[in-house]
Amino acid sequence: MDSPFAEYLQARRAEVEAALAAALPTPPACPAVVANAMRYSVTAGGKRLRPILCLAAAEAVGGDRSLALPAACAIELIHTYSLIHDDLPAMDNDTMRRGRPTLHVVVGEAMAILAGDGLLTEAFALLARAPDTNDPAIVARKLRVAGVVAAAAGATGMVGGQALDLDGSRRPSGLRATGLLATGHADFDADALRVMHSKKTGALIRAAAVAGAIMGGAPDATVERVDAATGDFGLAFQIVDDILDVEGESVELGKTPGKDAAAGKPTYPALFGLDAARTMAAECLERAERALGAAGLADSRVMDIGRWIVNRSN
Amino acid sequence: MDSPFAEYLQARRAEVEAALAAALPTPPACPAVVANAMRYSVTAGGKRLRPILCLAAAEAVGGDRSLALPAACAIELIHTYSLIHDDLPAMDNDTMRRGRPTLHVVVGEAMAILAGDGLLTEAFALLARAPDTNDPAIVARKLRVAGVVAAAAGATGMVGGQALDLDGSRRPSGLRATGLLATGHADFDADALRVMHSKKTGALIRAAAVAGAIMGGAPDATVERVDAATGDFGLAFQIVDDILDVEGESVELGKTPGKDAAAGKPTYPALFGLDAARTMAAECLERAERALGAAGLADSRVMDIGRWIVNRSN
Repeated sequence: MDSPFAEYLQARRAEVEAALAAALPTPPACPAVVANAMRYSVTAGGKRLRPILCLAAAEAVGGDRSLALPAACAIELIHTYSLIHDDLPAMDNDTMRRGRPTLHVVVGEAMAILAGDGLLTEAFALLARAPDTNDPAIVARKLRVAGVVAAAAGATGMVGGQALDLDGSRRPSGLRATGLLATGHADFDADALRVMHSKKTGALIRAAAVAGAIMGGAPDATVERVDAATGDFGLAFQIVDDILDVEGESVELGKTPGKDAAAGKPTYPALFGLDAARTMAAECLERAERALGAAGLADSRVMDIGRWIVNRSN
Repeated sequence: MDSPFAEYLQARRAEVEAALAAALPTPPACPAVVANAMRYSVTAGGKRLRPILCLAAAEAVGGDRSLALPAACAIELIHTYSLIHDDLPAMDNDTMRRGRPTLHVVVGEAMAILAGDGLLTEAFALLARAPDTNDPAIVARKLRVAGVVAAAAGATGMVGGQALDLDGSRRPSGLRATGLLATGHADFDADALRVMHSKKTGALIRAAAVAGAIMGGAPDATVERVDAATGDFGLAFQIVDDILDVEGESVELGKTPGKDAAAGKPTYPALFGLDAARTMAAECLERAERALGAAGLADSRVMDIGRWIVNRSN
């Protein structure tokens, strides 16, 4: 990673974290008990990959990144809520996240569920209210972004991916008899794995870049290429996550390595082997570079972020 | 209840239920496992008070109620998600709702959490996509409604009310020591009860009416009066709920009566006695009628819905 890019990431991260802190609801409008719980998780750090990608996309298409900052923050709020709910005892039952106790360990399950619900809802409140303008062109962009983000975060996207993951790896016996758990993933093959991850992880990463491009005023053809390229970013992100789970150190990851394998979850290294998984991540990057190149964005920070996704160590 | 009003309710309920069924995501875009779980709860019936109120407000201000139908459905999706999450073992631990097993009993806690998350997110997807138009005036109304609904549903509204309720009635020992549960409701007084309910129940009822008025094209002064009047609807709704919990039959309520008192929850009858609680509900209705009257809406279906809220038996 070149030093100017590291500086770029640091500057954007600081911008995002300041905006996140300012965006969270506070007492008296919001009860302190839930405001504090939301803030605990939002300020826990993290790479801030999605919001930085959103800002980078807005800049890459020649837009004013301040217009994209609320969307960047909204997407990070959604990412944070998804971690809180994923960590719950009924879900992944994780007690540590980013080196700190998970929210439900600190405030109890009920308040953690509510804090997650609050963050998800606040994301849309933020998309609706900011940037604060009556300019019909910006109003239309904001509404379009709200639709893109909701589709990516909901049951057709992230929530659906999480449901597939749950259904595939931890099916409680007997539920299938109700007819409600009707899908069959007894053999989680490569295609099912790709679909699951494209929803669970990929959809929100794509939405971040697409939201940035839309708020930046990109024409539809450019938005589509950004969408395609960052779909490959999302896939690469997950492949690298799986590789790091096999190779990683607990300190760097901030979570327990080997957990996926221990839980019997399907992973890219498990299905294809480590070397093939590494090759697949590199191929994602090549496809993304071609898609961005077709929009004249191959030399943008968006592409640098793709390289960062693949070369990261945590 | 006069027969034409009963017919009105029935017609609007049918309209809402058809639109709800059509709005829910389906396979293959949405995995069947979560699509089925969402549908189980959305189709479980209920009064459909909020969406009918939304449509009534749009009609009362002279608007086209088809413009308000997506918002009406979005608010019912949010109401449904809130019931799913409230019923979870970590929250109220209810096993029956509307005469059927609660969702987590049928599909497990994890999938119930996800289905709730999916419904909340889908609400905003629906607000963003429908009605499908590029008309800048309607686009601006849609974005304004998304903001109103998010503020009412989130940590400043419904989620915040639920957090206050949880903090006030079921504080797990030791959490306060973390500093995260910092508010003090050892003695839940009348004012705190009002604030809690205005957020937990009132905010979404108000938002339903306000969304209808906005989509119906009402001027701001009318929107404000609808907001004030239906704030009193929300308070009356909760007072009557508490009264029915004392008096009600399990069959009519579809849940266990006396549960609030058994849980040591603060209620209006517990704080003021049954007679005073009944008087308070009647006063809410009078205030609402004056507010609606000031907007020329005292003879509208909106006011009929207020009377229905107070005179209902379930």
